[in-house]
Amino acid sequence: MKKIAIIMGSDSDLPVAEKAINVLASYEVPYEVHVFSAHRTPVEAKEFTVNARQNGFGAIIALAGMAAHLAGAIAANTTLPVVGVPVKSANLDGLDALLSTVQMPSGIPVATVAIDGAANAATLCVEMLAIEDEELAKKLSAVRAESTAKVLARNRAIEQKYNK
Amino acid sequence: MKKIAIIMGSDSDLPVAEKAINVLASYEVPYEVHVFSAHRTPVEAKEFTVNARQNGFGAIIALAGMAAHLAGAIAANTTLPVVGVPVKSANLDGLDALLSTVQMPSGIPVATVAIDGAANAATLCVEMLAIEDEELAKKLSAVRAESTAKVLARNRAIEQKYNK
Amino acid sequence: MKKIAIIMGSDSDLPVAEKAINVLASYEVPYEVHVFSAHRTPVEAKEFTVNARQNGFGAIIALAGMAAHLAGAIAANTTLPVVGVPVKSANLDGLDALLSTVQMPSGIPVATVAIDGAANAATLCVEMLAIEDEELAKKLSAVRAESTAKVLARNRAIEQKYNK
Amino acid sequence: MKKIAIIMGSDSDLPVAEKAINVLASYEVPYEVHVFSAHRTPVEAKEFTVNARQNGFGAIIALAGMAAHLAGAIAANTTLPVVGVPVKSANLDGLDALLSTVQMPSGIPVATVAIDGAANAATLCVEMLAIEDEELAKKLSAVRAESTAKVLARNRAIEQKYNK
Amino acid sequence: MKKIAIIMGSDSDLPVAEKAINVLASYEVPYEVHVFSAHRTPVEAKEFTVNARQNGFGAIIALAGMAAHLAGAIAANTTLPVVGVPVKSANLDGLDALLSTVQMPSGIPVATVAIDGAANAATLCVEMLAIEDEELAKKLSAVRAESTAKVLARNRAIEQKYNK
Amino acid sequence: MKKIAIIMGSDSDLPVAEKAINVLASYEVPYEVHVFSAHRTPVEAKEFTVNARQNGFGAIIALAGMAAHLAGAIAANTTLPVVGVPVKSANLDGLDALLSTVQMPSGIPVATVAIDGAANAATLCVEMLAIEDEELAKKLSAVRAESTAKVLARNRAIEQKYNK
Amino acid sequence: MKKIAIIMGSDSDLPVAEKAINVLASYEVPYEVHVFSAHRTPVEAKEFTVNARQNGFGAIIALAGMAAHLAGAIAANTTLPVVGVPVKSANLDGLDALLSTVQMPSGIPVATVAIDGAANAATLCVEMLAIEDEELAKKLSAVRAESTAKVLARNRAIEQKYNK
Amino acid sequence: MKKIAIIMGSDSDLPVAEKAINVLASYEVPYEVHVFSAHRTPVEAKEFTVNARQNGFGAIIALAGMAAHLAGAIAANTTLPVVGVPVKSANLDGLDALLSTVQMPSGIPVATVAIDGAANAATLCVEMLAIEDEELAKKLSAVRAESTAKVLARNRAIEQKYNK
Repeated sequence: MKKIAIIMGSDSDLPVAEKAINVLASYEVPYEVHVFSAHRTPVEAKEFTVNARQNGFGAIIALAGMAAHLAGAIAANTTLPVVGVPVKSANLDGLDALLSTVQMPSGIPVATVAIDGAANAATLCVEMLAIEDEELAKKLSAVRAESTAKVLARNRAIEQKYNK
Repeated sequence: MKKIAIIMGSDSDLPVAEKAINVLASYEVPYEVHVFSAHRTPVEAKEFTVNARQNGFGAIIALAGMAAHLAGAIAANTTLPVVGVPVKSANLDGLDALLSTVQMPSGIPVATVAIDGAANAATLCVEMLAIEDEELAKKLSAVRAESTAKVLARNRAIEQKYNK
Repeated sequence: MKKIAIIMGSDSDLPVAEKAINVLASYEVPYEVHVFSAHRTPVEAKEFTVNARQNGFGAIIALAGMAAHLAGAIAANTTLPVVGVPVKSANLDGLDALLSTVQMPSGIPVATVAIDGAANAATLCVEMLAIEDEELAKKLSAVRAESTAKVLARNRAIEQKYNK
Repeated sequence: MKKIAIIMGSDSDLPVAEKAINVLASYEVPYEVHVFSAHRTPVEAKEFTVNARQNGFGAIIALAGMAAHLAGAIAANTTLPVVGVPVKSANLDGLDALLSTVQMPSGIPVATVAIDGAANAATLCVEMLAIEDEELAKKLSAVRAESTAKVLARNRAIEQKYNK
Repeated sequence: MKKIAIIMGSDSDLPVAEKAINVLASYEVPYEVHVFSAHRTPVEAKEFTVNARQNGFGAIIALAGMAAHLAGAIAANTTLPVVGVPVKSANLDGLDALLSTVQMPSGIPVATVAIDGAANAATLCVEMLAIEDEELAKKLSAVRAESTAKVLARNRAIEQKYNK
Repeated sequence: MKKIAIIMGSDSDLPVAEKAINVLASYEVPYEVHVFSAHRTPVEAKEFTVNARQNGFGAIIALAGMAAHLAGAIAANTTLPVVGVPVKSANLDGLDALLSTVQMPSGIPVATVAIDGAANAATLCVEMLAIEDEELAKKLSAVRAESTAKVLARNRAIEQKYNK
Repeated sequence: MKKIAIIMGSDSDLPVAEKAINVLASYEVPYEVHVFSAHRTPVEAKEFTVNARQNGFGAIIALAGMAAHLAGAIAANTTLPVVGVPVKSANLDGLDALLSTVQMPSGIPVATVAIDGAANAATLCVEMLAIEDEELAKKLSAVRAESTAKVLARNRAIEQKYNK
Repeated sequence: MKKIAIIMGSDSDLPVAEKAINVLASYEVPYEVHVFSAHRTPVEAKEFTVNARQNGFGAIIALAGMAAHLAGAIAANTTLPVVGVPVKSANLDGLDALLSTVQMPSGIPVATVAIDGAANAATLCVEMLAIEDEELAKKLSAVRAESTAKVLARNRAIEQKYNK
């Protein structure tokens, strides 16, 4: 199975990144975690990226805050799907990272998820791998079913408490 | 090869959708175009979506404006990757559609691209299909190379005009 | 008397929902509380909604955060009035939920109240039921009078403290 | 049948108000149209509002732009449901009117619809009257069915053009 | 000397209002403090306002949060200068109150100050009274001079600490 | 009678400034118009401002766009009331000028009106002069009455057209 | 004298870039103009940038719209001062480019000017070169004096027209 | 070597300013720290600024919050490069200070960095001085190399923990 790369712009993004790690682990999808900065280690970020496809990666998750250039910088160096996670920083409530990640020019897409939405970034990568992988598609459906069951259980609890 | 579905919330979104159609056609990736509204034809939207995987689709592009629920509504009914294109409407400059598309809750991702960024939505789908398709990956690289060549040509024109 | 349905997208919205519950209880308007997610339990959400009118409901309150599609998804399946409560989440200060709830396309209205404004959502439903219910209209006027009296009492306290 | 009042803050709002007028006329719901300004004719606005219920009105639609106080000012003087339509003005793309209309304090709700969304304001009022009016509820369902049929027809046209 | 009225929309605005009270007291300008809600006690708000000029008031400060209609509602009932203080509430960081206060339509001005800027609202009122009152103008200059002196003193402290 | 100064940051602001000129002329309040830039002619801006009180001015209107510092720069040099008019420029829809004008620090107030709201800036100045001038106060009331009459006339026209 | 590089992300930015070209030409400061895209020609962008200092450049101006990564990408590869010009695109009124340009992480500054503010970007570069170049500093002062003179002339024209 | 001036609008900005102080100290670039307010001590701010070049300064850093006029006011009085640091205040998350600092009119540039980005302001000044100072340019490169090394070390730590 193809691997997923999780790349943080800074290790301060780790608490957000761990949400992606946990999702990938739960699907038993292989992954690697790296810290590459678009601005501080552009050489390593590029080197990793240009070789990612031949190194067995199927998609790349990039997390960054503020003027979040990481996902775009990675997307510029690969034709693998790149998923961008805007990370909320001290100011502007994540709007800066969201716009910096999503408003990519034509030709270089970044698949952007919600602010701090790393869990969904991972699920999106699993969905990409599952296009051609029926087993994985079944797991995705199973997780959805579990999630549905949980909401239904909560619904029953709420209904019992409030509806007489 | 898996097909890509392009779904508009309204046929007024067609000028934006055509940017996706053109990109998919240029890659010779098969596609279908539909108008399904999350709010006006939810039954048809759902029926299409729950059958999309078995009907040979690999990913779904959803375009919608204002309180753009379409991509999320589709994502709720499939584990195929769903790419959301926020469409700019008469007011708020597309910010409403962007936030309505990208801020999805955990478990139901929508891969969001730029406001009116349907060309990138299509490229992103091609990238997903190319994870396991070397031919397609080569085409993506070729298009990137062409795009690079065009920018370089424009650069030369500008350099000749302005730098003596 | 017609019942009011209070539907949360997630049970984490309960603290906000309780403001609506308390208002309805104070008016002795019958209500039911449910947790239905537009994205995780769309089947149950729809089933509840399409039967709501014949099951004796007069209006539906929907609370959701982030890309708050719940109110719109419910409105797509009923011609009962749907009141949307945008819930503030971790980021963007509720603006995402507000725009996702209020900017509905023509034909499928959602009556939107303030961010976290569940008390007003309930009052609005009572006002709807009171269009044809004089007793309820009197109760609404009485509550307004009480509220006026409270502000006047506070005014007197402030006036005594500050104006000599 | 109860009447619906459509109140504009300024007659420059008439093009938006006419969308509401057309919807109400199509349902054969009786309505009145007035120009009352929260700031320039507060006396008349109040007089109309405090008598609205006994004068046979079931709900009030208020349209205003900029610091759109009209809907709130009306809501302060009646316990009839008040629907607010934020109108886009020369600056800020309607965000000022949206926030001024929707962010009402507890106890005085305004049912807010999309910027310039007067058609939905009217539909919402029809939905309120239809809570206790089966005929009207059927008309609402019929209009929804027509709207669905239109989208399906457009879908077929698009499908024929693009899907071979 | 003319009096200044400080009117809060809710007594929860008192901590902000006290900044205005302190400034007026420091100038020995007479003032009154009231709690009048544009929506909950509109009758009292209007009665106070229409009589304010003949009751010896020279200007009115109005503080309110969320859809802050208070200053506009007061301005609609007097030709005294009205100063609006947008108060920050739980959501949207005060932007809702700012736009609701400042974006007044032509003919009914509200002199708006910064979010939570009640001290400046009071200073502005003193400046208005000082147009025709030389003694008060001198006090304003003296306070400015004090403020300048304080900044200069802080500057010296910083300079001594950091510049060798 | 005290004069009002109208100061533009650039003569491109003249179309907005003329709205203030017309209002002042209609009240027969004496005024002067100047172009002083906070950044390009700070010396002249300051010289005019520090002498404004002794030169017979009662208030100063300052119009500026973008990073609109003019009103604040003038307010720093006088204790006369300063009214700021944020002017909409090519980008950001006037939000930059609004925030730059209204968010003044404690001690140096700027009475801010709506974006491009120069007519209200002038009315506000007339209101300030009318605090101690009964004749002017009567004119203000008369203008209000005319404005009310106009809205009532428009209301009658609309009522006759739409209400049968 | 050191040269200034003007780098556009796309030749569609040329109308904005020409404002910088004209300013540099007026100061007789040598410059070069290039089109390098952070995403489409990252190799050429980098190659130019890493050699810029030794090739005689003193500062680099980067213009880009949408998720404007160009200035940051250039700043990551040089310790020359990089001036970023956010360019307004079809949506969001330039806010996306502004936040993507200015919100750079610690260690990699981008000197950001106003949206479409290329003239100021050029002036800023001239100011940098003038730190150690008295002749250039004199030219800057002369241009300021001219600009002041122009505003004063416009002021006189306005004063003659409006002040009698 | 030329000195750098760090000017705060208020000594409450000191925690942000210290980030600039630390960077300049680490480069052994001489600096001075001052508290000058655009509005409270405009005379001292101007006096310092007009003499800054002849007093040996090469660039000026200005920090201010809210309607942050300080950087622009300083830029109006010198042709030295002025670097503006928007400081986050109690409301609006720093957006007010950002727009007030960056949206300067043509002719008077302010080099704006991120909200609270004083460290980058200092680095930018060092980069300006390093245009003509090879030693300083080497130090800048060395700091970049250190920063790169730190990110690489963190990357190795993360890689060891997560990638087996």
